[in-house]
Amino acid sequence: MNWLTLIGLLAATCTTISFLPQAIKIIKTKHTKDLSLGMYLILTIGVFLWSVYGILIDDLPLVIANTTTFLLTATILILKIKHK
Amino acid sequence: MNWLTLIGLLAATCTTISFLPQAIKIIKTKHTKDLSLGMYLILTIGVFLWSVYGILIDDLPLVIANTTTFLLTATILILKIKHK
Repeated sequence: MNWLTLIGLLAATCTTISFLPQAIKIIKTKHTKDLSLGMYLILTIGVFLWSVYGILIDDLPLVIANTTTFLLTATILILKIKHK
Repeated sequence: MNWLTLIGLLAATCTTISFLPQAIKIIKTKHTKDLSLGMYLILTIGVFLWSVYGILIDDLPLVIANTTTFLLTATILILKIKHK
């Protein structure tokens, strides 16, 4: 694996798993007051569109990374609405 | 512009601007307790790596989208540390 692929993989891993600690924090505390509803609405739509784009251009890494991110941001969005 | 490009552009716009309402909310309220520090640390590193990747593969849209996102997530990260 060359340096370029490694940087790309590391970037994709970071931006995908980053939402996991936020989801865990909300599940533990049930507090979401400081989180922006607008952010998670727009972000979840955006990540969903990236997944659709990945399917349309037949790019498996794009689909996997964005579908995983979508599941996490959608979970945070649902928790934000639930614990409003 | 075809449908595919439109979906990609819409996806990039959403995932980039989504962090703006969160930054504005913190600037207004100064409250960041419910935000995960781990999330913004990992996310900011990830978006920075995407910008580096974009520069290395000479992809201007990737550089523009990720540099903008980086500025927003880094701002939220600094505010999270400041108003801890």
